[in-house]
Amino acid sequence: MKMSEQPLRVGIIGTGIFASKRHLPAYQKLPAEYNVVACANRTISKAELFAEKANIPSTHVFSYLDELIRCPDVDIVDALLPVSSNLDTVLKAVEVGKPIMIEKPLAHDLADARELVKVCASTDIPVLVAENWSYREAIPKMKAAVEKCGEVVGFEYVQSIPFRPDNPYLGTAWRATPSHVGGFLSDGGVHQMAFLTGVLGQVERVSAFTRQIKKENGTVDTVKATMQLKSGVIGTYGLDFASAQPGTGYFRIHGTEGTVEYRFTDFTLSYTSAASPGEPEVVVTGKEEDDVKNEFENFAEAVRTRDKTLLKCTVEDAFHHFAVVCAMVESGEKNGESVAVPQP
Amino acid sequence: MKMSEQPLRVGIIGTGIFASKRHLPAYQKLPAEYNVVACANRTISKAELFAEKANIPSTHVFSYLDELIRCPDVDIVDALLPVSSNLDTVLKAVEVGKPIMIEKPLAHDLADARELVKVCASTDIPVLVAENWSYREAIPKMKAAVEKCGEVVGFEYVQSIPFRPDNPYLGTAWRATPSHVGGFLSDGGVHQMAFLTGVLGQVERVSAFTRQIKKENGTVDTVKATMQLKSGVIGTYGLDFASAQPGTGYFRIHGTEGTVEYRFTDFTLSYTSAASPGEPEVVVTGKEEDDVKNEFENFAEAVRTRDKTLLKCTVEDAFHHFAVVCAMVESGEKNGESVAVPQP
Repeated sequence: MKMSEQPLRVGIIGTGIFASKRHLPAYQKLPAEYNVVACANRTISKAELFAEKANIPSTHVFSYLDELIRCPDVDIVDALLPVSSNLDTVLKAVEVGKPIMIEKPLAHDLADARELVKVCASTDIPVLVAENWSYREAIPKMKAAVEKCGEVVGFEYVQSIPFRPDNPYLGTAWRATPSHVGGFLSDGGVHQMAFLTGVLGQVERVSAFTRQIKKENGTVDTVKATMQLKSGVIGTYGLDFASAQPGTGYFRIHGTEGTVEYRFTDFTLSYTSAASPGEPEVVVTGKEEDDVKNEFENFAEAVRTRDKTLLKCTVEDAFHHFAVVCAMVESGEKNGESVAVPQP
Repeated sequence: MKMSEQPLRVGIIGTGIFASKRHLPAYQKLPAEYNVVACANRTISKAELFAEKANIPSTHVFSYLDELIRCPDVDIVDALLPVSSNLDTVLKAVEVGKPIMIEKPLAHDLADARELVKVCASTDIPVLVAENWSYREAIPKMKAAVEKCGEVVGFEYVQSIPFRPDNPYLGTAWRATPSHVGGFLSDGGVHQMAFLTGVLGQVERVSAFTRQIKKENGTVDTVKATMQLKSGVIGTYGLDFASAQPGTGYFRIHGTEGTVEYRFTDFTLSYTSAASPGEPEVVVTGKEEDDVKNEFENFAEAVRTRDKTLLKCTVEDAFHHFAVVCAMVESGEKNGESVAVPQP
């Protein structure tokens, strides 16, 4: 039996909420592809708790990520760490020739993000930025619907994520006092960028105003921006973690012949033709997609074939998602000045 | 009987579509306040046609606006002219001491707009800029609803007005090849600004991208902007005259405790509390208001009491509405640069 036919042996670094709630179940849904065999956490008791859930033997529970990365039973590394560790962790994995998955945003600042793009370009080892939103089935469906809209006139992308003091992610120290650019605006915002650019393509330039409304959010938690895409299309973008938001959250694209709308609140994608404005055609409705599963299948394929070009969300894509947020934050600091989206 | 108790004798200059369809019916609904006694049009046949509808004797049909303004039977002047004429017309009316109503936007450029503010500040003769949207009853109602929202986090204002080749206003030469800043973006846009600032207060600074999608629209017909208000509130603004727009057009304000939304498509104002997100409270619904009538009552009151401070939409307000659009157009020309809204 060749290694490429066996399940990939996964070592998980950082055994927090997302590791337990999303990654582990996704691996367990794909037993032919993955087998979680090791884990590591700086706080060993947390690693032990996770090991219990994942049936990892105590011999493979580590408190240093280096031990896990070098462990001969680990084929691939899944690092769910504060993003400021991404560059170091990738360097270590690449050094020992192991494919690695890291959390989004790509890095905590543009300097590290650029370094990561460089490192990944210099190796054929697959590095996946775990941008699960790039794997939403609504993206190609929305893209297809936009084709029916005639010339695109503009768009609105609005997402309000209400502040809930009981949000488990808020308890994480690196989120409460963020060192990564944009705080929640990049932490949550790169997802939005993956969706927006997945449908309409890359962003050329932004102007934005930003605010911090809730001190609990650590840094800026509200952005209102206008964007010019590389295609020439213009639109507005709003993201906040401060409002009450009953019933909002959508991405609407207006064309000369029709309008396409995706509602994040109930996962409804609809197309309305100018010819029959009263009859929206619903394309997708009511179901959150298992984007993490789609993503993990894609990673397994890239690892098995050792072909990183198969990855749907490349390190360069993830750089762009983060760079748009950085440009908005910079624009906000400069009173709405127009900022070109940084390149790798 | 004192003059202040008689109906005000109105002379209408510019007998086009809006004069026939909105102004004349509004005067006729207010017979105690107004009596249309004279009209003028450069094309005398058009004035004669209007005179017939309005029961104006042929002795009071003029082809020169100066004749109408000086006519001793005319108490107040209603000038529905291309806005590039506003300054000249106001100067002439003020010279003979007659109150005057002019069309919005205040002027075709900021220089004329500033001159108009100066002229009007130097006299106690009431000058009304016919910004009928300032008289919408939804404005104070929306303002009251916003009070319940907690701290305002942000807003979205989107209005798409689909291009219809049969739109009667499009046939007007001064609209097809506009000399006024912003073309449709100011012609229609100052209405939106009257509504937006009526609810949330004045705009401090904007960044915008602009496009021309339909060549029939004469100049830029699409704007996507972000705004910072004097209050510190930030939001996005979109206006276009190019998209198919099935079912859009709304002004939504997000607060920490609730959301207020006004839909321009069906005149519905609703408030949704964070405490009961599934139960929006509808405040106004289904009825376009007679804003022109409200406005004309306000003007009559200001004229009769000779108290221009009673006017709900002052020349300074109209200046601001126009200045915001000018700032957006300038920002668009400068690739989204942040522009402070010009002051008088």
